[in-house]
Amino acid sequence: MSPALDGAEVAVGGSRLVTLARHRDALGVLTVGQDLPFPVARFFTVEEVPADEFRGWHAHRECHQLLVALRGSVIALVDDGRERQEVLLDDPGTGLHMPPMVWGRQRAYSPDALLLVLASHPYDRGDYLEDYDEFVALRGTAS
Amino acid sequence: MSPALDGAEVAVGGSRLVTLARHRDALGVLTVGQDLPFPVARFFTVEEVPADEFRGWHAHRECHQLLVALRGSVIALVDDGRERQEVLLDDPGTGLHMPPMVWGRQRAYSPDALLLVLASHPYDRGDYLEDYDEFVALRGTAS
Repeated sequence: MSPALDGAEVAVGGSRLVTLARHRDALGVLTVGQDLPFPVARFFTVEEVPADEFRGWHAHRECHQLLVALRGSVIALVDDGRERQEVLLDDPGTGLHMPPMVWGRQRAYSPDALLLVLASHPYDRGDYLEDYDEFVALRGTAS
Repeated sequence: MSPALDGAEVAVGGSRLVTLARHRDALGVLTVGQDLPFPVARFFTVEEVPADEFRGWHAHRECHQLLVALRGSVIALVDDGRERQEVLLDDPGTGLHMPPMVWGRQRAYSPDALLLVLASHPYDRGDYLEDYDEFVALRGTAS
């Protein structure tokens, strides 16, 4: 596994870092996510995750996700069944776009971390792949 | 103007409070925004707003917005040209849906406040109404 990367290009399974505009003036700081890689049907936030805990460990069949650490930091894994990479998300101005069929896991949440996840689809239990071997087999079939 | 309200029903111009599910377990706190009142094309966050500053003071012709105070608190005004109300947003589990043609302003950001705004449309300068009298006139015409 690669070490956690900060700001480096991410390419595993079509994942990529998306830059969000940040504007600071006398009225505060505005961070803008527009021209998103997909229309957003759902969002969730994750916080208060113990530093030694992992979240995720699954892929989605159809759902795109965009992960943004609005506060603090978290390390996000992306894995396409052949390569895996970890990405340090520690900047509200950078989102990680995870297309469907990319295996993910998040770890090392800082105590103040607030992770925003935007998703392209409503929640659907059937969209989750939670068996890594099955995921790898499906990726192999698809490519 | 009404005093700031906490959790009360909001009805001005069709505005309403939306409850987001909050789940706490050993892996942290998950807050879920699904069955959103509109598909999301864009989002932005606002933070580090001085306590005595105001933001907003405009309406949108077409764009819906959902405001969620992910951290801290902020007071949001909703005004339909006839009635106005202020709503205290201080709970990540509650969003304020502002339909189009509702005049808004936000004030009294707490020092740690992080306001998430989800929007139904891409940014469009022409969607903004920034003249209150024009807004009131347009509301009067529409009703």
